[in-house]
Amino acid sequence: MTSPAPTARAYRRLGVEERRTQLLAAALSLFAHQPPDEISLDDVAEAAGVSRPLVYRYFPGGKQQLYEAALRSAADRLEDCFAEPAAGPPTARLARVLDRFLAFVDEHDTGFSALLRGGSVAETSRTTSIVDEVRRSAAEQILLHLGAEGAGPRLRMMVRTWIAAVEAASLIWIDEGKQPPAADIRDWLVDHLIALLVATAATDEETAGAVADLVAQETAAGAVGTLARRLAPVVGGASHLL
Amino acid sequence: MTSPAPTARAYRRLGVEERRTQLLAAALSLFAHQPPDEISLDDVAEAAGVSRPLVYRYFPGGKQQLYEAALRSAADRLEDCFAEPAAGPPTARLARVLDRFLAFVDEHDTGFSALLRGGSVAETSRTTSIVDEVRRSAAEQILLHLGAEGAGPRLRMMVRTWIAAVEAASLIWIDEGKQPPAADIRDWLVDHLIALLVATAATDEETAGAVADLVAQETAAGAVGTLARRLAPVVGGASHLL
Repeated sequence: MTSPAPTARAYRRLGVEERRTQLLAAALSLFAHQPPDEISLDDVAEAAGVSRPLVYRYFPGGKQQLYEAALRSAADRLEDCFAEPAAGPPTARLARVLDRFLAFVDEHDTGFSALLRGGSVAETSRTTSIVDEVRRSAAEQILLHLGAEGAGPRLRMMVRTWIAAVEAASLIWIDEGKQPPAADIRDWLVDHLIALLVATAATDEETAGAVADLVAQETAAGAVGTLARRLAPVVGGASHLL
Repeated sequence: MTSPAPTARAYRRLGVEERRTQLLAAALSLFAHQPPDEISLDDVAEAAGVSRPLVYRYFPGGKQQLYEAALRSAADRLEDCFAEPAAGPPTARLARVLDRFLAFVDEHDTGFSALLRGGSVAETSRTTSIVDEVRRSAAEQILLHLGAEGAGPRLRMMVRTWIAAVEAASLIWIDEGKQPPAADIRDWLVDHLIALLVATAATDEETAGAVADLVAQETAAGAVGTLARRLAPVVGGASHLL
């Protein structure tokens, strides 16, 4: 894959930071669409339109260092996606965050799969700790919007298991050619969190309090109201258990 | 760590299969309680009370081959845990399977964590494919008990995300010194699956059918009935959304 454009770029003089940013962007765009084990330093050099020695000057640790730096920058972008003003119905906020998250997954599909599936030689304790940091950050944001930053173990476990479910759903979504559309996955993941909150509220007082606060902020047209109305016939069939 | 007992065992004459089984059992018991990167072939030889060359005679691929063989045998044991007769309320069957699963997690805590957390050099595409096989087997069993072996993508995705949530909950449970007790985690995971089934039934006809079949097999004292009664006050607070 040689194209004249990147080679032409090689002759541009860039400052140190600018060059580093350019190399990282080239690396991230490769790592986003191919498993890390299939990418060589030469591929990064070619994609950035520079020589292999120049890549080494900026990243003396070679491909592994570039992979970790690219992952670091992807993690920062992903954490930015999680930020959402604390205004309006919480499920609408969650839906917006999930839209951004799924757009990120769409844009980094192969790299996202390879990273979360594991088994790559590029995976180290450093890369897994970056992934864990992103998970922790996602959990903190959700607890913040639930008004439960200092949540106890049950509510915290609930949120973390939902995040694991979101990751699993994203991997399946990629495997299935991004079907159904992202908006369907988003709505289902919102319903998933509502259901999980309500089920956990049945046995955990703190979660019950968070659910009461959440419900008070929702509108009839929102996700909680829609789910509740859709569930009426399903629940009707369980009257012999009440 | 030297103890006379294993050394004494070294002088017993074992058949080829018996010796292989003994070496594997020693390896599995080490890999269950320490991260693979901290275990050497010498540790396995010592634990089995045999010489290092003898271990190599059975496992010429050394530590990596032993790790994969131990993982294979652990995966087989875990898949055995999933088998459950298709009789009685499905949530009671699920609770029994989860009891066996959590006992397995308890018994293999550190190895289970290290494997699912990733970042170990012992992790390869072969080890991740063994883990995926166990996940697929768990999903098939659940679909079987839901009477939905040929399930469509939505119900299948739902089951797989629940399995991811079970894994995440198990890792958190290990991290938190196995608190709360396994029985609490089990009950919560059962509630979690019921909630997820019901929420998915709201937008997926096939899941709605599976829920109707499930509910018909439950008793008032079972998990669905108990959850439904506990939820009445939680749902009462949402009447403005209906």
